[in-house]
Amino acid sequence: MRPETKTENRKAPTVIDSPPSENLQLDNNGRLRHFLSIDGLNRELLTEILDTAESFTGVSERTVKKVPLLRGKVITNLFFETSTRTRTTFELAAKRLSADVLSLNISASSTSKGETLLDTLRNLEAMHCDMFVVRHNDSGAANFIATHTAPHISVVNAGDGRHSHPTQAMLDMFTIRRHKQKFSGLKVAIVGDILHSRVARSQILALNTLGAEEVRVIAPKTLLPADVASLGVKVFYDLEQGIQDADVVIMLRLQRERMGSAMLPSEHEYFQLYGLTDERLEAAHPDAIVMHPGPINRGVEMDSQVADGPRSVILQQVSFGIAVRMAVMSMAMGTVTPGAAKR
Amino acid sequence: MRPETKTENRKAPTVIDSPPSENLQLDNNGRLRHFLSIDGLNRELLTEILDTAESFTGVSERTVKKVPLLRGKVITNLFFETSTRTRTTFELAAKRLSADVLSLNISASSTSKGETLLDTLRNLEAMHCDMFVVRHNDSGAANFIATHTAPHISVVNAGDGRHSHPTQAMLDMFTIRRHKQKFSGLKVAIVGDILHSRVARSQILALNTLGAEEVRVIAPKTLLPADVASLGVKVFYDLEQGIQDADVVIMLRLQRERMGSAMLPSEHEYFQLYGLTDERLEAAHPDAIVMHPGPINRGVEMDSQVADGPRSVILQQVSFGIAVRMAVMSMAMGTVTPGAAKR
Amino acid sequence: MRPETKTENRKAPTVIDSPPSENLQLDNNGRLRHFLSIDGLNRELLTEILDTAESFTGVSERTVKKVPLLRGKVITNLFFETSTRTRTTFELAAKRLSADVLSLNISASSTSKGETLLDTLRNLEAMHCDMFVVRHNDSGAANFIATHTAPHISVVNAGDGRHSHPTQAMLDMFTIRRHKQKFSGLKVAIVGDILHSRVARSQILALNTLGAEEVRVIAPKTLLPADVASLGVKVFYDLEQGIQDADVVIMLRLQRERMGSAMLPSEHEYFQLYGLTDERLEAAHPDAIVMHPGPINRGVEMDSQVADGPRSVILQQVSFGIAVRMAVMSMAMGTVTPGAAKR
Repeated sequence: MRPETKTENRKAPTVIDSPPSENLQLDNNGRLRHFLSIDGLNRELLTEILDTAESFTGVSERTVKKVPLLRGKVITNLFFETSTRTRTTFELAAKRLSADVLSLNISASSTSKGETLLDTLRNLEAMHCDMFVVRHNDSGAANFIATHTAPHISVVNAGDGRHSHPTQAMLDMFTIRRHKQKFSGLKVAIVGDILHSRVARSQILALNTLGAEEVRVIAPKTLLPADVASLGVKVFYDLEQGIQDADVVIMLRLQRERMGSAMLPSEHEYFQLYGLTDERLEAAHPDAIVMHPGPINRGVEMDSQVADGPRSVILQQVSFGIAVRMAVMSMAMGTVTPGAAKR
Repeated sequence: MRPETKTENRKAPTVIDSPPSENLQLDNNGRLRHFLSIDGLNRELLTEILDTAESFTGVSERTVKKVPLLRGKVITNLFFETSTRTRTTFELAAKRLSADVLSLNISASSTSKGETLLDTLRNLEAMHCDMFVVRHNDSGAANFIATHTAPHISVVNAGDGRHSHPTQAMLDMFTIRRHKQKFSGLKVAIVGDILHSRVARSQILALNTLGAEEVRVIAPKTLLPADVASLGVKVFYDLEQGIQDADVVIMLRLQRERMGSAMLPSEHEYFQLYGLTDERLEAAHPDAIVMHPGPINRGVEMDSQVADGPRSVILQQVSFGIAVRMAVMSMAMGTVTPGAAKR
Repeated sequence: MRPETKTENRKAPTVIDSPPSENLQLDNNGRLRHFLSIDGLNRELLTEILDTAESFTGVSERTVKKVPLLRGKVITNLFFETSTRTRTTFELAAKRLSADVLSLNISASSTSKGETLLDTLRNLEAMHCDMFVVRHNDSGAANFIATHTAPHISVVNAGDGRHSHPTQAMLDMFTIRRHKQKFSGLKVAIVGDILHSRVARSQILALNTLGAEEVRVIAPKTLLPADVASLGVKVFYDLEQGIQDADVVIMLRLQRERMGSAMLPSEHEYFQLYGLTDERLEAAHPDAIVMHPGPINRGVEMDSQVADGPRSVILQQVSFGIAVRMAVMSMAMGTVTPGAAKR
């Protein structure tokens, strides 16, 4: 079979401004095709991701940590923003599915020869890559790439600007479900820099879609988005009030480069106001779990006693992250069937 | 079996000046052993490469993009000059043949410890690597390495200085044959910086060996080599005259770093004189195809309308590049037999 | 199975000062669990490593250079100190055992986000990595990591500060045994910068444990450790006296950055005093072999005539290095049984 000559007239845009499309993520049968954002995915589909991930948790515990679901497929990591940790979890997930992994620092390689992003995509498509895992510091980058890629390619968003980090949100949902069984009736508190956090945005959407009773955000006013009310959350400015009776306390990572600006006091002062300690945690539900997307700034977002304490499920989040990424990848590639996860 | 003690007295040369040897590329039975240059390979062998590549084009379209021809072999990318794109295609070709791939930035790693190139080669041989894919900015580097390597190693030239880029030339030949079926009767025009182009040099040799009717080069005088007449080409200084009735138009990539020097006018002026537009392309044969080794400088070598237009086969070149590199690698490793491709 | 919540209260130490523990390397049945140092391993275990490596030498010579012993395992290279050569041999050894390899430049990736070493380890454990291959410029780093890692992880020391480089020592022992059959009765001379050499320290321990008759060190006083007498060696300051009748002459690599300091004269002067030449080598036993851990500084530690001459086994050391690393990795992972090597 010969590759078709592309006949469309493509122009290389310099601004990434494609509007997010709800349907872009789904094929005509309503199955996952790209995984770009929690937005536009319903409870059934999110639950299918969690169920599929559940079926994969065993793989990482086996002697031979491999299933052949993506054998012979090429997963390409397109990381425009460095993240060893996220890249590593996607790489491990891909290898456990038996895929080949190509890791490209695309920004460096393409800009050095003056190639446009679209030309880079066209070339990777022509090389018969099957999936792009995209990390970019511009909001909307993964959507843009999914909009402009060839029909045989699936795109997974590994974090774009302040917009979305949907695999992180889903591994958080997975961890919550493991400990709390269901979302109904749960009070979840998210603490920290909501304004700049793609993680928080995706978590709030996922929690509301999955039916959590109450989602709270706790932050100083300078770190809350203007439209915070419209996100479907209760806003608190005080940590102890906000985590009162919470079943789940999610601490966000503080970007140290924002410290000392007008937005944020010193690290020490931040910890005084919003840092989690064993003492403060007593306000939460006695069975509350503590989460953090990592890496932790010990002594800033929380005490080491909390991070390493009995309520912390932070390392479980990392473990479950592999299974959740395996689920999203194999679903988007159409190599697992919806029933499979329940067998 | 014990590795033999090397008894030859080797000296580490500081200049890479080994003369190209016709026979170096072939074993005693006339089969491919190294792939260094089009020079010295006859029409039968070039055709065998194209036929073998033809048998591999299907692999990239399969669900499982793998054949086990090089399973357990170690292909080592020795890139002394950065080229993400070329390295990626060789890596994908190797993985589709089920080989293990080792990518070394040898210059950086060896110079930092003051090791000579020959010592580096000896060490990789002792580690039982099977193939070196060599990219180097010195003409003759791949020849030099092939001359000095152990008998069990095959060397593939992935571009050396201004000398040769034979896998690029062969993927171009493959693309031409796919569209034009045969080379006899074909008029092929090569446009751009002939002087500095290893791609052009290899293309001219391949086209003449495969029996193209007429090979033309089109360039300003400053970008033509002094011995251009001896290459077996017709020389044109005017684009429209040069592509008159051409069946194939190959645009070379312009090295931007040469712009503004005595050799070259501005990018704008270059485009005015040698840039390909839909209008100018009307001078060529109505079925003419347009090629480019990539990455394209849009608006310099050609308009986006041409690059993305119906006559462009630029992305097919990329696709076929994987199959051609699979063919060369497996032939040099002796894991495909001449008959296999015709079955 | 759910990952357990870690309940210990861990503190991130800033100094790596854990004392080496003899038993840390062995499990309750006396089998290898970590491979950190020659210290604390008895002759039987060292011999088992050599015997297992013997059974693997054939793998690198096969058409398909693979055995499935570590299929589905994840070997993580944690290199805090760059070493392309050592990393490459571990990577090839892991791939020949069919493992997946993750190469992390941990120092760069973790420090850039301010994560502590222990948090990095905890995360890699949570991702279900199976082995850490550690290279670090602090003595004791591998011990520290082995002390603090999860029970399912094995640690292999790929060189830590001035302390130990046990896989290098074992490949040297393997090479000696191949040529001399046994250690009893052997005179082995180690020449060069003993003071800063982790290689020398490990070699001396291994030679004495395996029963070599006499281990000699030859160096200027400034390059000998204060406690040299306690190492179980005979000390020589003169090269020709020291290699008299030696069966094995091991030349250490000279760190050029130490040249010109108070410790060392110029390279030229060093060669005059301690450089090995064919002439000087006549003092050794007529069947003496010459070894070097590589990369060689030609004309500093030895003449090219010696390096490439008939007594040099330097490239065999490299080849055997793969088999020895395969042995250590598969033994520490419990995937080869003691009897297997003798079959």
